[in-house]
This record gives sequence, structure tokens and C-alpha cells, in this order.
Amino acid sequence: MSKKGNLMSFRPDIKVLDATLRDGGLVNDFYFEDDFVKALYKANMDSGVDYMEFGYRADKDMFEEDKFGKWKFATDEDIRSIVGDNDTSLKISIMADVGRCNYKRDIAPRSESPVDLVRVACYIHQIPAAIAMIEDAHAKGYETTCNIMAVTNVQQYDLVSALEMLTETPVDGVYIVDSYGSLFPEQVRDLTDKYCSILEPCGKYVGIHAHNNQQLAFANTIDSCAHGASLLDGTYASMGRGAGNCSMELLMSFLKNPKYNLFPVLKFIEKHMVPFMESPDVLWGYDIPYLITGHLNQHPRTAIAATNAHRTDYTNFYKELIDRD
Amino acid sequence: MSKKGNLMSFRPDIKVLDATLRDGGLVNDFYFEDDFVKALYKANMDSGVDYMEFGYRADKDMFEEDKFGKWKFATDEDIRSIVGDNDTSLKISIMADVGRCNYKRDIAPRSESPVDLVRVACYIHQIPAAIAMIEDAHAKGYETTCNIMAVTNVQQYDLVSALEMLTETPVDGVYIVDSYGSLFPEQVRDLTDKYCSILEPCGKYVGIHAHNNQQLAFANTIDSCAHGASLLDGTYASMGRGAGNCSMELLMSFLKNPKYNLFPVLKFIEKHMVPFMESPDVLWGYDIPYLITGHLNQHPRTAIAATNAHRTDYTNFYKELIDRD
Repeated sequence: MSKKGNLMSFRPDIKVLDATLRDGGLVNDFYFEDDFVKALYKANMDSGVDYMEFGYRADKDMFEEDKFGKWKFATDEDIRSIVGDNDTSLKISIMADVGRCNYKRDIAPRSESPVDLVRVACYIHQIPAAIAMIEDAHAKGYETTCNIMAVTNVQQYDLVSALEMLTETPVDGVYIVDSYGSLFPEQVRDLTDKYCSILEPCGKYVGIHAHNNQQLAFANTIDSCAHGASLLDGTYASMGRGAGNCSMELLMSFLKNPKYNLFPVLKFIEKHMVPFMESPDVLWGYDIPYLITGHLNQHPRTAIAATNAHRTDYTNFYKELIDRD
Repeated sequence: MSKKGNLMSFRPDIKVLDATLRDGGLVNDFYFEDDFVKALYKANMDSGVDYMEFGYRADKDMFEEDKFGKWKFATDEDIRSIVGDNDTSLKISIMADVGRCNYKRDIAPRSESPVDLVRVACYIHQIPAAIAMIEDAHAKGYETTCNIMAVTNVQQYDLVSALEMLTETPVDGVYIVDSYGSLFPEQVRDLTDKYCSILEPCGKYVGIHAHNNQQLAFANTIDSCAHGASLLDGTYASMGRGAGNCSMELLMSFLKNPKYNLFPVLKFIEKHMVPFMESPDVLWGYDIPYLITGHLNQHPRTAIAATNAHRTDYTNFYKELIDRD
């Protein structure tokens, strides 16, 4: 496989998804003020973002409503309170986790919902369950993606099997998800080639969702893009679990399609993200504990605990993680 | 040109240079305590770093001694006060800027100096002056590199001319220097191919010195490495002018040569860099103003002023930089 496009032109197939409420919600338990969400919706429209993800559609029987902000559950009603009928070119997505979403009950037909895209997130062993959800959402009229998480823990033969199974489904796109921020650009280019070679002949696109543990979220996103990925996830000021995600402002400064515009992104960050960025209680972004979990290809939960506790005893933290006893 | 090596093995030609005192010195006017410098010297030895740069050899007739810490001038005497005879495998470098170093007077023969490598830094129009310095240093017995700064402002035909001129000199290596942090990995790979194709047939190596304006310093360094660069600059905790450099801890976690060791790097950061990182007066690292100057391929001086003033009015800053009146 080879490069698609170059740095001077643009590929019209490339689209950007803002995951700030969803991945950023993992940082603040989804407590975003309505004014913030409305301003984000406007910033996304002004900057040319293609999809805005409003959160998870989590099962209220499984998660207690009073322990989370409403975007953990991202109901059609709550989304509508922000977007009305969303008579715009900005599409709306939600994430539905396998095993954490009562999709038969909680996902209405698209004709009754402001949502356009249902992103089904799963681990590799949950692919059959994900396919059932994809088929349900497709039958209800939605666009769908399958977001196979923690790809760095997936064996190549399982991955190929999963991608081949997905070619037999109505799914529109499949994501490379580097949950642990462990991938190097060289690996992302290879993975993108593999995903594209299986999915594109069946008319399905590839997406990329990166984490910044090794300061590679942006690099991995644009290299995946250069090799064919066409749905790119970003978050404002990188807000997302742990080390955060590919930064929307970097993405908007990079993409050449004239429909994209950096200025509204800067405007939103200045007014609405800076208070978060300056708050000692809402922490995300590259830090040495995230480098260590990324380097070790581990879930970032230990690093999140370390940065929340403002630990700087990096050597002890490292020793805890490599302890084999 | 194609990839050299892979992610599982290692290339023995790859070497790492610690530029913390030199590029980091641009952040704190070179005021480092001797204990810091001694601990850094030890950390570099313990972690397998190949070269430690002690600072600039600036001309004391041009820069007032009482306005800078001593590593702006990095005299042989001051270096010796840290390393003695440096009876170790860690080599010592200094940087000599064209037009700012009285090299005939201030660079002694290598037999009388603890320095191993003189890195001659220049802008493209200074190549003839740089060559004179390289020839002088070589005649005195030093290893030499030529660090052509601000490569993103250099026309391709000038660059090719400069590289060809350098092949006729005794220089050991030539650096890709992304002073403004403007390069994308795709461009770095192409530039590395170009440098290698001209320099390697003449027995000269390629180095890479990156800045983190677009969170790409590490990505650009490892991609340049994958395409043949073999002297890689890093700084502890990325300490360096503006957005900082490629982080030594990321580099040490990436490189596979068993001589490299992440743990002493973490130990040094924990004890000696954290106080800097927590100080409100010593600022470096990715921030939105650096993204903007990097995106616009401009010198970071305006962004340095903005972050030092703790400005978060990113939209005004952006408008100031794109003002064409």
C-alpha cells in the first residue's frame, strides 16, 4: 500500500469527529454545563467539523444517573435540548459500548432521533456482540462504525478475522483504536494498510482514534490519514482520558480542505477550555506516568491515579508497574 | 530510499545526544547549578547517552558574562570542573554558532580540551563561514557536525548546494534542524532521504534536532531515524526553547539498543527536572502559541513572549501573527 494524497492538496473523503464530550467526559465524569455543550456545537459547525459525539449511550440500569453528568447517557432528549432538529451539516454521533448499552431499548429509530452515527465500541472478543448491535442500529437507519479498542493487545490473526467478519456486515467504517497510546507511527501506517486492504474493497472506510501517552496522538492520526484512514477523531485541547487524544487544534491546522477552519477552535479553547485546563481537579494530557503505561502497553488507570494524586516519584511508579511478583 | 531497520531490532550506528544544557539553557539563560550539571552528567552515563552537550561556546566580547549562566560560554575549564578528564564513554559536545563564537581564540586543540565534538550551527547563508569553522575544528582534532538551522525556510536548491558543499569538507555529520517545529513526519522522512542520499555516499551521517511546536518532536525524530538519521537529539523532560525538544525519556523508551536505559532518565527527572517543571518562571513545552508559530513557520519568539506573559487570548495572538498590514 502507499500514501494517499499529499501535503499540499486534500482528499475530500477525509472527515473529522469531535470526541470532546465523550472521551473528555471520562475526565470529568461527563459533567459539562449546557453552555459549554452549546458553544462546542457552534464551534464544531464554525470550524467545519463533520461529526460531534455527544457522549455514551450508557445503560441506566447499570450506571447510576446521580453519579455522572448526563452525557454519560446522551439521551435523544438531552441531545435535542442542545441541537433542536440539528438542521445543519454537522452530524451527531453517540458511542454505544458492547455490554454497557441496552441498545434494543435505548436506541430509537433514526427517524425519531437527532443522532446520525452510532459508534459501537468493543474489545476483540466482543466482535459478535458488536455485530449484533451494528445490525440493529443499521436496521434502525443509522450510520455505524465499529471501534475495536485496545488494538495493541490484539493478535494479528484475530484482528484479520474480525475485520473479515465486519466486511460481511452493514457497518460503514471500522476504527483503529490505540486505547493505551502505545503505537508508533510506523505501526500505525502498517495497521492502516492492513485495515484498508480488507475493508476498502467492501466499500467501508477506516477511522483512527489515538491517545497521547507518547506524544504521538497527532502524529499517528495524520500518518494513518496519509495511508488511507478517512475518519479522524480529535478533541479540543486534547481533552480525553489520561494522556488525552489527538488535539483538534493541531488537526485543524494540518488539514488542507478549505472547509476546515482553525480560528473557531482557538476561540472555543480560549473561552471554554482554558478554565478546565487551569483547574487542578480536571486533569488530562501527556505526563510521564502515561509515557510509562504507553511504553508498557498497559491500561492507563494506574497513571490516571498517579497524576490525580500529583505523584512525581516516577521511579517508584515505574517499579510498581514492572513488578512481576 | 526506504526504511532502515525495524521496531524489534536496533541499528548500532544510532547515537543519542543530550542537549538539555544547551537548548534548555535558552529557557533559563543557562543558569544551572553545578549539582544539576553533575547529576545530569551521571544520568547520561547511566542511561547510555552517547554525547552530552554542555552549552554554547559564545564569544564573551559579544555577550556579557554577568547576564548569563556559565554554560552560555561552556569553557573547557568549566566543563572540566564537572567531568575532570572525562575518562568515560560519554562524549562531550559544545555548540559554536557562526558569527557568535570566536573560534580561533576560544577553541583550543582537542588534546588540551575535554570536548570531543564541536557542533557548528548556522543559517543557510552562513554555510561558507560554517565550513571555515568546521575546517578549523577538524584541524584541531575534533569531531564536527554542521547544524543547518531553520530548514523549513531553506529553498530546496540552496539546501542541495549546501549539502554538496559539505560533502567536500571534513565534517562528520549534518543535522536536519527544525527550529520552528514546523515539519510534519512525512516531510521529515523526505528530508532525511535527501540528506542521506547526498551525505552517506561520502561517509557522513545525518542528525535530527526537532522542536515540539506541533507535538511532533518525538515522532519526527523516530521517523527520521527510521529513514537513516543516526544522531538523535533529546532533552530531559523536553526542556528547550519554546515548545521544547524531543523528550529524552520518550527516546530512551523507544530505542531498543540494550545499552540504553530509561530508568536513570526517570530518576534524574524526578529529582532535578520536577523543580524546574513546577516553577512558574521557567517555562517551556507545547502550548497553543507554539502550535500557531509552528503552523505559520515562524520563529517562536512571539510565542515565547506570549507564554511568559501567561496569555491565553489565543485568537488575538493568532490575529497578531497573521496581520499583513
